[in-house]
Amino acid sequence: MIITFPDGSKREFADGLTGLDIANEISPRLARATLSCSIDGAHTDAFRPIHGDHEIKFFTFDDENGRWAYRHTASHVLAQAVKRLWPETKLAIGPAIENGFYYDFDTPETFSPEDLGKIEAEMAKIEKEDQKVERFELPREEAIAYMDKLGEPYKVELIRDLPEDAIISFYRQGDFVDLCAGPHVKSTGVVKNIKLLNVAGAYWRGSEKNKMLQRIYGTAFEKKADLDAYVTALEEAKKRDHNKLGRELELFTTVDIIGQGLPILLPKGARVIQLLQRFVEDEEQRRGYMLTKTPFMAKRELYKISGHWDHYREGMFIMSDTPDIEDENAEVFALRPMTCPFQFMAYLNRSRSYRDLPLRYNETSTLFRNESSGEMHGLIRLRQFTISEGHLACRPDQVAEEFKGCLDLAKFMIDTLGFTEDVSYRFSKWDENDTDKYIGDKEDWECTQNMMRDILNDLGVPYHEADGEAAFYGPKLDIQIRNVYGKEDTLITIQIDFQLAERFGMQYMDSDGQKKYPVVIHRTSIGCYERTLALLVEKYAGALPTWMAPVQVKILPITDRTADASVEIQKSLEQYGVRVETDLRNEKIGFKIREAQMQKTPYMLVIGDKEVEQGMIAVRSRKDGDLGTMTLADFRAKLLDEIATKAKP
Amino acid sequence: MIITFPDGSKREFADGLTGLDIANEISPRLARATLSCSIDGAHTDAFRPIHGDHEIKFFTFDDENGRWAYRHTASHVLAQAVKRLWPETKLAIGPAIENGFYYDFDTPETFSPEDLGKIEAEMAKIEKEDQKVERFELPREEAIAYMDKLGEPYKVELIRDLPEDAIISFYRQGDFVDLCAGPHVKSTGVVKNIKLLNVAGAYWRGSEKNKMLQRIYGTAFEKKADLDAYVTALEEAKKRDHNKLGRELELFTTVDIIGQGLPILLPKGARVIQLLQRFVEDEEQRRGYMLTKTPFMAKRELYKISGHWDHYREGMFIMSDTPDIEDENAEVFALRPMTCPFQFMAYLNRSRSYRDLPLRYNETSTLFRNESSGEMHGLIRLRQFTISEGHLACRPDQVAEEFKGCLDLAKFMIDTLGFTEDVSYRFSKWDENDTDKYIGDKEDWECTQNMMRDILNDLGVPYHEADGEAAFYGPKLDIQIRNVYGKEDTLITIQIDFQLAERFGMQYMDSDGQKKYPVVIHRTSIGCYERTLALLVEKYAGALPTWMAPVQVKILPITDRTADASVEIQKSLEQYGVRVETDLRNEKIGFKIREAQMQKTPYMLVIGDKEVEQGMIAVRSRKDGDLGTMTLADFRAKLLDEIATKAKP
Repeated sequence: MIITFPDGSKREFADGLTGLDIANEISPRLARATLSCSIDGAHTDAFRPIHGDHEIKFFTFDDENGRWAYRHTASHVLAQAVKRLWPETKLAIGPAIENGFYYDFDTPETFSPEDLGKIEAEMAKIEKEDQKVERFELPREEAIAYMDKLGEPYKVELIRDLPEDAIISFYRQGDFVDLCAGPHVKSTGVVKNIKLLNVAGAYWRGSEKNKMLQRIYGTAFEKKADLDAYVTALEEAKKRDHNKLGRELELFTTVDIIGQGLPILLPKGARVIQLLQRFVEDEEQRRGYMLTKTPFMAKRELYKISGHWDHYREGMFIMSDTPDIEDENAEVFALRPMTCPFQFMAYLNRSRSYRDLPLRYNETSTLFRNESSGEMHGLIRLRQFTISEGHLACRPDQVAEEFKGCLDLAKFMIDTLGFTEDVSYRFSKWDENDTDKYIGDKEDWECTQNMMRDILNDLGVPYHEADGEAAFYGPKLDIQIRNVYGKEDTLITIQIDFQLAERFGMQYMDSDGQKKYPVVIHRTSIGCYERTLALLVEKYAGALPTWMAPVQVKILPITDRTADASVEIQKSLEQYGVRVETDLRNEKIGFKIREAQMQKTPYMLVIGDKEVEQGMIAVRSRKDGDLGTMTLADFRAKLLDEIATKAKP
Repeated sequence: MIITFPDGSKREFADGLTGLDIANEISPRLARATLSCSIDGAHTDAFRPIHGDHEIKFFTFDDENGRWAYRHTASHVLAQAVKRLWPETKLAIGPAIENGFYYDFDTPETFSPEDLGKIEAEMAKIEKEDQKVERFELPREEAIAYMDKLGEPYKVELIRDLPEDAIISFYRQGDFVDLCAGPHVKSTGVVKNIKLLNVAGAYWRGSEKNKMLQRIYGTAFEKKADLDAYVTALEEAKKRDHNKLGRELELFTTVDIIGQGLPILLPKGARVIQLLQRFVEDEEQRRGYMLTKTPFMAKRELYKISGHWDHYREGMFIMSDTPDIEDENAEVFALRPMTCPFQFMAYLNRSRSYRDLPLRYNETSTLFRNESSGEMHGLIRLRQFTISEGHLACRPDQVAEEFKGCLDLAKFMIDTLGFTEDVSYRFSKWDENDTDKYIGDKEDWECTQNMMRDILNDLGVPYHEADGEAAFYGPKLDIQIRNVYGKEDTLITIQIDFQLAERFGMQYMDSDGQKKYPVVIHRTSIGCYERTLALLVEKYAGALPTWMAPVQVKILPITDRTADASVEIQKSLEQYGVRVETDLRNEKIGFKIREAQMQKTPYMLVIGDKEVEQGMIAVRSRKDGDLGTMTLADFRAKLLDEIATKAKP
């Protein structure tokens, strides 16, 4: 058989050799590093025999595919260990994921941290046993009977749901067999440096209507040093996790009785969001935006025009005076999942001329999404959130300039918050193979996407393209941000829309006396405030830049004798708009400092008898510790400069 | 018979005399002024014979009761005139109201302004005819048969709905008879100076499910001069009506497709509300409040604890994943009609000590009320509104001081907005005859109400007491404001609540080591922002004080030659935070000035060649017209002072 390599070179091999055999013929070192391979572009096991002429590519741990196979086998080792320890356990699914793998188990046992240790020990044994991994296929009915006999009802359900013509494959390693599409590495001895991370509840198939299973997360690396570095980074990330740290710092909380995805912003968190909102509103005002304040709900009829009734109904909270929300006579309201048609009403309030354009509307807007309970997370996935929404109505000749303005504003915000290093740009296009999800025809989409690509190229934005990520009414630029765990989320979007103006009858009288539809740019400038707060907490490990810190200065009198002087200093700083608290409790100064430090207060002023006598203050910074004594005026000048320049910590 | 007068004096009269006869014996002048009287405190006709010993009081047009009888008879005269002109008309109801009266008619005819003139002419005839007003009673079945014979189905329905033992009375004047409880004046000739004001649609019995009737509003005064003054004031009020002027000034709009009671705040209106919100939030922060930002919805279970599920369900927007909102397994959310339990969650986030109290929480909070469509009005009655909510948790020994602080804040806001002359204070108590509407027992209520009365007396607040106006969980001080039409609405409330802390398990550790429940003060400091905007527009006839005007300065270049200089002036003022627009259109300067004046812009700067040459600006004020030329620095100093002192126009 003739095998072609990625560099285009070809070589003949005996028919029936495996990928690993071929790798070995090239170099034993390559064979040792090879975890899986692709045959004619399809990712597969490197231990399967090859017949006929093909293109081959080998994957090592440096390739995503190689890591995937490695960790997928690790998940089978995990399942095998659990079945050995608790034979009654039913297996659900166990894929590799970014940075690791998991397996879902149905067992009456609740896995404890000690159990994870036991499982890890058992997995180490399986690794030592170096069991060969084998693949085999079964016809549908035999496959079902086989899994039924093994007492695996979830696997039976999975097979039943496969298409009629699907190939049904299994992987065996020693006494353990799992329904699996693969690929895997050649034996359990290959998979080293495994670490189980945690256990979480997970519904079977992600639906709350199903049974809650136990999901064990783990990871595995080829090199011990990489595993150690990853675990250390994860521990560091956990310390910064806004869902933990944000609660400890009393920025927010959640309560069952209100509901998931509906956080309560406590005074410190509410203050940060207030500061951010004012900062954004003021900057937008400076850039010629006009503020609106539009209602959070509207009648069904509005969403029928916008397309949300047909394309997004499941995601909306609906309120009706009758159970039948399709009843023509019913008064049906829905909470808004976006601001667009509401802000369009400001445009529609009077007739517009080409001279009036561009019109830039902004709003600090609350939106609602009927997410299912399982999808909620801290301040990231919410049922209600507040966002800096804006819509620009412009003439076609103004689109490029306005788009540029939106991007400039977004970059200004990103820079000011300190996120510059953490963002990337995604040009999100429609999915031309699934056009039902979108409004408008192919020609419109191609035209708008080409226009947007031209603008992005002109501006030199380093974007990558993503199919199927557009809004249903137009393509968009997503500014993506990585959180501390490396997970990517959208921070800011800028969209170009040639469709909705016509749907809503928004027109302007052009210079040629013709009525025309403006192009609408939908954009955010800082995105969702709750999410931004979460990202800030994680970025700065809770030590927010002084300009946005909820409490900027904490005054710590050493004894009751200096309490009055401390309060005087507080009042004096408050005159300049500084946010100050004085800790008047009858506690030791060391305790007060430790607590203020834990609350990540930027500056602590320690006031003892000596300081009062000398008319000085002793200043501590959360970052640099003791800054020595100085006059209040000197400290104030330094502080106000730091606030005015929005200095980063 | 012995008759006792209000001053306690007694006199004997012949049995069977009427109130008017007795008045006449005292003084013919009193008899001429008397419109109705009360017998032993019950308001009644002065023309009915009296038998036996009683207390009597006479009512003239100076008394509310007297005006009521006068205008009630006017409404009968109106109905009589309409029946004469359109005999097929069916009569509904026709009461006296504050400042006038109305009557609801069912007729295919749509009353035009000309029709109102015809009706007024017919009413003047009836007045001239001076028909004697007579009262008679009928047993229930006879009454029904009588009204049925007259072809008055609405009257038949009204009689049927009366309690079994009700006295059913009629009033006759000439050829006209109406079902009516009275009282009335003695004859149609008494009722002079009638004016019909307008026609509006009104549902039978106020329900949208019933037929829409035509309601004619009118008023009547004893003296022609008073009528004229009233009509002039009404015309002035109409010009100030925020629902008209607010739309003209592009402060807000409403659209059918979004829904009633859900206004869209256009850029100018949104700007005013933004300014007010920041002003309130900053003032509250200065007064030791801590900001929260809590969710707009919660699960049904929260409202069960707060009592809203049982006491306020009809007023809430409910969202459920099943039609049966009582289903225990359903996930049912409701939009919040108040902030209390949400803000309580901030208190409950950690344990509290007596040293932590008082805790003052504030929030710029959006609330939702499921009002029926008929109740909506401009920015006054809304389905969604934003309010300055606050809750103070305090120890019993702190309640008086904190209540005082709330009142002081409210007064500060009222003074700053210029409403001082327009407010009155209402001490709203529970209705002890309808205790089902409230939570808590009689003892609690009495105790809290007495405490509140003591505080109000101590503070010297000039309040009046109102039964049945309390919240369901406690008594309150309502600061009432009169709008341009003289209608009273609540602007600000301060409530004392001894109930909800216990319901929500809010506690603090007292100095004696005992866990106790704090007293909660619920308060607003400026009330509902949309309503406040409406009141400001009406108060100032749209000419808002400069500090809150959406556009403070309009720059008007006379020709294109001074356009650049105008934009320079704009930029220079914007550096100081002034809100400036430049009118660069190719229009005559007179036109530009008129338009800026109509938009109620506080200052107009007219920039011609001469001004540019001399480095001066020509300043016009919307109030005082031409202020002459001055340097930009002089104008800026004057303007910034006006803004900083929040000067009233």
